[in-house]
Amino acid sequence: MQNRIYIKDLKDNIGKEIIIAGWVDVRRDQGKMVFFDMRDVTGKVQCVALPMHEQATDQAKLIRPEWVLKISGMVNKRPEKNIKAGVLNGEVELEVKYIEVLNEARELPFANDAELNIDTLLDYRPLTLRRAREEAIFKVQSVILSSFKDFLNSEGFTEFRAPSLVGGDAEGGTEVFKVPYFYDQTAYLATSPQLYKQMMVGVFERVFTVVNVFRAEKHSTTRHLNEYTSLDLEMGFIEGPEDVMKLESRLLKYVTEKLKEKCTHEFKLLNVEFPLIPDGEMFPSMKLTDAQKLISDSTGVDCTQEPDLEPEHERWLSEYAKKEFNSDFIFITNYPRTKRPFYAMDDEKLEGRTKCYDLLFKGLELLSGSQREHRYDVLIDKMKWKGLNPEKFSFYLQAFKYGMPPHGGLAMGLERLTARFLNIPNIKEATLFPRDINRIDKRLSE
Amino acid sequence: MQNRIYIKDLKDNIGKEIIIAGWVDVRRDQGKMVFFDMRDVTGKVQCVALPMHEQATDQAKLIRPEWVLKISGMVNKRPEKNIKAGVLNGEVELEVKYIEVLNEARELPFANDAELNIDTLLDYRPLTLRRAREEAIFKVQSVILSSFKDFLNSEGFTEFRAPSLVGGDAEGGTEVFKVPYFYDQTAYLATSPQLYKQMMVGVFERVFTVVNVFRAEKHSTTRHLNEYTSLDLEMGFIEGPEDVMKLESRLLKYVTEKLKEKCTHEFKLLNVEFPLIPDGEMFPSMKLTDAQKLISDSTGVDCTQEPDLEPEHERWLSEYAKKEFNSDFIFITNYPRTKRPFYAMDDEKLEGRTKCYDLLFKGLELLSGSQREHRYDVLIDKMKWKGLNPEKFSFYLQAFKYGMPPHGGLAMGLERLTARFLNIPNIKEATLFPRDINRIDKRLSE
Repeated sequence: MQNRIYIKDLKDNIGKEIIIAGWVDVRRDQGKMVFFDMRDVTGKVQCVALPMHEQATDQAKLIRPEWVLKISGMVNKRPEKNIKAGVLNGEVELEVKYIEVLNEARELPFANDAELNIDTLLDYRPLTLRRAREEAIFKVQSVILSSFKDFLNSEGFTEFRAPSLVGGDAEGGTEVFKVPYFYDQTAYLATSPQLYKQMMVGVFERVFTVVNVFRAEKHSTTRHLNEYTSLDLEMGFIEGPEDVMKLESRLLKYVTEKLKEKCTHEFKLLNVEFPLIPDGEMFPSMKLTDAQKLISDSTGVDCTQEPDLEPEHERWLSEYAKKEFNSDFIFITNYPRTKRPFYAMDDEKLEGRTKCYDLLFKGLELLSGSQREHRYDVLIDKMKWKGLNPEKFSFYLQAFKYGMPPHGGLAMGLERLTARFLNIPNIKEATLFPRDINRIDKRLSE
Repeated sequence: MQNRIYIKDLKDNIGKEIIIAGWVDVRRDQGKMVFFDMRDVTGKVQCVALPMHEQATDQAKLIRPEWVLKISGMVNKRPEKNIKAGVLNGEVELEVKYIEVLNEARELPFANDAELNIDTLLDYRPLTLRRAREEAIFKVQSVILSSFKDFLNSEGFTEFRAPSLVGGDAEGGTEVFKVPYFYDQTAYLATSPQLYKQMMVGVFERVFTVVNVFRAEKHSTTRHLNEYTSLDLEMGFIEGPEDVMKLESRLLKYVTEKLKEKCTHEFKLLNVEFPLIPDGEMFPSMKLTDAQKLISDSTGVDCTQEPDLEPEHERWLSEYAKKEFNSDFIFITNYPRTKRPFYAMDDEKLEGRTKCYDLLFKGLELLSGSQREHRYDVLIDKMKWKGLNPEKFSFYLQAFKYGMPPHGGLAMGLERLTARFLNIPNIKEATLFPRDINRIDKRLSE
């Protein structure tokens, strides 16, 4: 739109006639004058239509919230007593000279700042996403996404596209959606791009992909989604899982720096602190067995025989990391092979343990990673031990038959990452259009 | 891997002892010496194992193509007569002092440089992707992908994630895959993120997304895929379709510049010229009816009554654009409303015509875009005229009910873009893991 300037730039145009465009946020009649707030993607500004500008005042009396306007006006400094310090455009207001209505809006089902329950929030997603809180959440999500890619590109990773339609349930153990395919065959929706990113290590050494993945789990909880965005990376020629953990520490440090640079306003609005990043090249790390011993010694309750951490143990360890290492992150390593997928490499120094790790963040598991098994024969044995049929993996196994370097990687859910970084308890609030057992945009039970 | 340097950097390390890692490309015994080429993601180098380095020579006699090695050695300048000018590392060779085998490989089913038909190429994808030609194609694809995002981020676009599981066949007219969902409901695989990106314009004004989309078409041709990557963008507050066309011209110019910067080697290897970009802020543009008149006048065959361009017309117009405007690109505008989707805006100045355009590139359609209808009531009428039931679109229509700015956008298939830029006739060769009626990694008929 010609000559339009963004609302955030108004403060640099005091005394000038400019053009803005956006949505009516709220409107207040005060006798012969009409006050209203205009909103665009960059922020808000107070507008005033004075009786001397007839077209503007007549039009301003008709407008309602969410109408779309193009406005010509003069940027005025507010009188000293009306200045709102620390607020965008708190020191200016727009004297409206001409209003062009670009589009009208129906009456809203609720006020822009009304408290809404989760179902209403999702039922009216195209509208509720415009609320300040929701806009902030997905601005942050977008910055996580772009900084993930920028960091990996700068570290020599190549982005590739993984397919969603796959020929089989790759990993076993998770519920998968089936898709009737041609010739009466059945395809499946990928639960992960795992096998493809490993194949791609044979081509580009370091790769990443961002794709939707699918889980046909029947749960409806604040932690489950039936479709989510997986941020996946895989790197070749590593010497151990620590190489992946170091890269991941740098990655999350970079993401946090970018959030501090671009989303200070959003974190403030959502009332959240930025993550505590410790000094050093890697977040603190602890073997699962050592962590369990520490917890048992401290709490007096023996958890050393458990194959995994209980939620209260994850919280305990996060508290510990914060106190001891000034870190919101802590790696827990060497999970048992019974609990980890076939492609995880066994740790030759620890009987029954793998080179897998989890990263805990503020009391919750944020993501998992591992060094993978790259030796063809060992991989086949591991598959059989897991009860999988290697013949079903013959396409994938080509990569290993024909020379695969030592490699490892990790996967994180974008929505989960967003929710954890922003202390949002329900993952659906950190998902633009969440799919669950009861909902695909609309409630399915209706 | 500690102290490893990339093969492309060897030429800067003449006279030094270094470590490389990668794959054996080819091996040649010459009496007591063994020559072999090593390959990593950055290139190749000739290695020589001399009898004086016993471990290296013994090991070098065992290695085979695609074995994965870590090598310590001395970078030597080649004797003048052996220098290969213009080839990476043509002036150096690596005197191998120690070989560590990181992984072995089975005997290859074919030589790395063998001519392969398309089925073999795809049957052995994890292996054939390592070939120089395939690696080049997907390096180019990766640069198209990253430059698409970088450009849009720099133009104030926000990336968002669109879902793949949708509640209905949004646009009608294309074959869709059905997914049995919970409660005996049926979900569908999205044929496009169109409706979601329009909703997101109401939130962030300018948005883009990169997602897999699905078409259940039963064709098996060199132009069809059942799953592909859609590069989608949508922008609010436009004054006409020209705003989208101008952005698109700048976008493709930027992509071409990045390809020139990062993929000169790949274009040379694939024997392809970079696209011809004309001067000016927008690629040349012509109304469909004017284009048809021009073709009819020049060829003597009347095509002015056709609703669309025939393939030979697309070729004719591309030739014309190249000759007249020194451009490999030409926009054709104002397609008839009978041929375009419901969300395309009608052109009020041209009865029965829309504000839709196609972009032709080297004789073929590269992508489509348009200004969209943003007025709620007009959109409802258009849906009905197209035989669609607005009630099925009630979620999407909220965005329009509650104030949508004028907007427009475009979509391009990443694989098609890659194929067209590289003059690859079969789109499957520009797709990492193509899904078609006969294939999901493995041939389905087997």
